[in-house]
This record gives sequence, structure tokens and C-alpha cells, in this order.
Amino acid sequence: MDDSAAVLDRIEQLEQRLRDLEDQAEISQLIAAYGPLVDAGDAEQVAGQWTEDGIYDVDEISMSGRDQIRAMVRSKNHQGWIAGGCAHFLGPARVQVNGDAAVAVCHSLMVVNQGGAFEEAPEFVVRRATAHHFEVVRTPQGWRIAKRTSRVLDGRTEAPELLRRGTLGQVAPQ
Amino acid sequence: MDDSAAVLDRIEQLEQRLRDLEDQAEISQLIAAYGPLVDAGDAEQVAGQWTEDGIYDVDEISMSGRDQIRAMVRSKNHQGWIAGGCAHFLGPARVQVNGDAAVAVCHSLMVVNQGGAFEEAPEFVVRRATAHHFEVVRTPQGWRIAKRTSRVLDGRTEAPELLRRGTLGQVAPQ
Amino acid sequence: MDDSAAVLDRIEQLEQRLRDLEDQAEISQLIAAYGPLVDAGDAEQVAGQWTEDGIYDVDEISMSGRDQIRAMVRSKNHQGWIAGGCAHFLGPARVQVNGDAAVAVCHSLMVVNQGGAFEEAPEFVVRRATAHHFEVVRTPQGWRIAKRTSRVLDGRTEAPELLRRGTLGQVAPQ
Repeated sequence: MDDSAAVLDRIEQLEQRLRDLEDQAEISQLIAAYGPLVDAGDAEQVAGQWTEDGIYDVDEISMSGRDQIRAMVRSKNHQGWIAGGCAHFLGPARVQVNGDAAVAVCHSLMVVNQGGAFEEAPEFVVRRATAHHFEVVRTPQGWRIAKRTSRVLDGRTEAPELLRRGTLGQVAPQ
Repeated sequence: MDDSAAVLDRIEQLEQRLRDLEDQAEISQLIAAYGPLVDAGDAEQVAGQWTEDGIYDVDEISMSGRDQIRAMVRSKNHQGWIAGGCAHFLGPARVQVNGDAAVAVCHSLMVVNQGGAFEEAPEFVVRRATAHHFEVVRTPQGWRIAKRTSRVLDGRTEAPELLRRGTLGQVAPQ
Repeated sequence: MDDSAAVLDRIEQLEQRLRDLEDQAEISQLIAAYGPLVDAGDAEQVAGQWTEDGIYDVDEISMSGRDQIRAMVRSKNHQGWIAGGCAHFLGPARVQVNGDAAVAVCHSLMVVNQGGAFEEAPEFVVRRATAHHFEVVRTPQGWRIAKRTSRVLDGRTEAPELLRRGTLGQVAPQ
């Protein structure tokens, strides 16, 4: 086979392109799992989406490290949302990978039931619409969130800025 | 070419990894098609997403087999939603493939127009937020839904449990 | 190596299957970027999602070419949504590629804050639920939107028809 070098080159290119797609898919799946996990109240799994010292900076609180993220899921506040009925509904993520780091961005709607059971008088309202910016990193255990920055879309300028930077693959401010 | 065995091994690995990604993408696309099809009222296409004897178990009704799913789409109830304006808006699915079976999970929002035409006095409300758990199987015609279990997120414990199990790749209870 | 023809054939098949997945992923990412970009008010990036003479036909207005799309993003109307707080929340796209053209479909919810800042008295409402049909084309710069047709899901028959055609990979009417 004369063209073994050409064959090896094609195989190498395939491997690289496939790795790129796998990275993008894995990060999309990581983000797609957040809403279901947090609405299930699974503190361990939610915290495990971050690196050990990962940051989750949202308007109301900023969490640093898995312990603080676990505590948020287990808090009376969050458990109250689950008990009443709640969906942290994240949209499809726009993902941009750059070697062992990536930036992703998406919207979410937090929909809560402020009424009774569905058969009686439920009242689902959109409590907040939010912009999410993710900085994720490749670890030996797979892709993990190093920093997630979330700002409510209530007109504050930080939120559109997160969307813009995230879509262009840029890291969050500070 | 001395290393033909190595080449064949790399090709085989590529084929397997690509198949995994294709499976995940096909299942994601199957689920992404549900909302548009059901809001289009296309009973045949909706039913065709399931296996012949597939199950769609939702709070209000449990359907078994394509005929019952077709009947739901054609029902006065469902056609009424379409006539008034309706979006069965499903989120991006978290998908976990295991050979010829897979588990997927996502949220949905059912948004309905309870008012008039958009130019007059529309009133879009979230009628329900729902947890969806899918058990899909590989068939000669592609991936099909064997069982879909959906529970409204109104505080009933079954719904968060479906999200938890689905995200971990576990089948639904019973 | 006797079976070099077989090896080349397997590599060629891998390349084609990978290209198919890459196309689908790129189009999904293009659509996933629309909401973040338009809510960020980035007129240049939004317009760049279309071909030079691309069409964006939505109930209220029909835009033709990038200049008109830029103008929509920069309009007092659109900037007002951003200033008050707004999410153009698109669902995961169902994508069907056919060579150098593709059809995609998804829902969106336009959620706006009609109240004050989140800490005070925000009031997030679903202003509209919409059916989106995309005709995208491969260009030297990547996949771009040639025509996007959007109709509000308020009961008008055009909207379910767009969902149906889009899911089946058919182009929009006209």
C-alpha cells in the first residue's frame, strides 16, 4: 500500500474531528442534565457537575466549591420549590470548545407552581428568565463546570453582556 | 504496511465512537420532533415515534400502542389546543445509550393561548410544566419510544423521581 | 496489505457519516446562537447568521437581506425589549440535511419582563409562542439561513403547517 501515509493522515483527521464533536456533545449533555438534577433535588449529582472548587455565581448568591452548591440544593428555599412544583428549564446550549476549555451559553426559564395540585388549581408562572454563561474544563473525569455565571434578564445590562460574550466564546467578566 | 492491524484497530474504534454519537443524535432528534409534530396535529407521525406497542403514560391518561396515541392527537381535546394556539415545548434531552436501549429525560412546558389572535388580545399561559422520561429502543427502522412516562411538576413526588432516574440512565418505576 | 480497498472504503464511509453529524451539529449551534445574540442586541452577529440576501419572514414584518435584519435588532422596539428584560428562548432544533441545503424547525417562547427589577416587582410573561421554520444553506463561510419563516401559535393555521413541513424536512409554503 503506497499511500499508507495518506491513510494515516485521514485517520488522524477523523480522530480529531470526532473528538471535537464528542467534546461538544458531552458539554451539551452536561448542561442538559442540570435542570433535571436540580429539580430532582439530587445535591450530590448537581455538585458533581462542577470542579471541586468550581464557582456558581448567580444574582442572589455566589457559591464556591461543591459543598456550597450541595448546600444550595439542600436548602429550605430550594426544597420548597421542589415541594410546590418547579422546572429549571434550560435551553439548548451554544458551545465553543478550545482545547481543554470551553465556553457555553444558554437561557433558562424558572417555572414554578404557585397554586395547588394540577387537578385542582395549579398556577404555573415564569418566576425568572435568566442568562447563563458556562466556563467548562476537561478533567480526567470528563468535562466539568469551572465557573457558571447567571444573571436574570430583568433589564440589568450584565445579562445581555453574558449572552453576547458566551455566544462569541469569550469568558465572563472578572 | 506493517501496522495494518493498528490501522484496522483505529478504524474500528472510530466506527464505534461515531455510532455512539449517531445514536445520541438520532434520539435527540426523535425527541425534538415530538413537540412540532404534536402541535401540527400529525397523528400518524406522532404515533410512528413509538414502537407498535409503545406506551405513553401521562398523568391524565395512559396510552398503549400507536392506535391510542393517534386517537389522542385526533381527539377533540387535543385539536382544541391546536385551534386556540398551543406549544408543547420540550427542552434539550439528556440521553444515555446502552447498546440497543437508551434512556432520555427532559422537561416540557405546555404553553396555550387562552385569548384571541395575537394582534388582538392573546393570553399565553403555562398550563403545565412536566417531567418526561423516555425509554427508547433500536429497531430496524431506527430508534423508537418503547415507553414514555410524563408527570406534571406540581409537587407530586413522582415527577422529580422521573427526572432523577432519567438523568442517571435508569428506567422508570414499574 | 491486501485489503487496502476495503480500508479506503471504510475511511470514506466514516468521513461521510462524520460530515453528516458535523452539518447537523453546526446547524443546531447556529440556531442555538440566535436567541442569545438577539437578546444581547448584537445586530452584526445576528445579521451574519443569514446569507447576504437571506429572508426573515415573521408575522409582523418581513425582512430581506442583512441590512433589514440589523435594523430590526437596532430598532427602538427591539432595544426596548432588551432594556426591560427579554428572553427569545428557542427550543432544540429538529434538523434535516440534504446535501448543501437543510430544513430545521423549532418552537420559541418570547418571555418579557413587564414589571420592575427582579428584587422589586418583576413580572415575566410569555408574550408569544412561535413556530419557526429554517431553510439553511452551506456557504464557504459555513451554514447560513437563507429563509426563516416564523408564525405565532395563536391558532392561525400557518403555524402548525410550518411545524409539520419543517419536521418532515419540507420547505416552507411559497
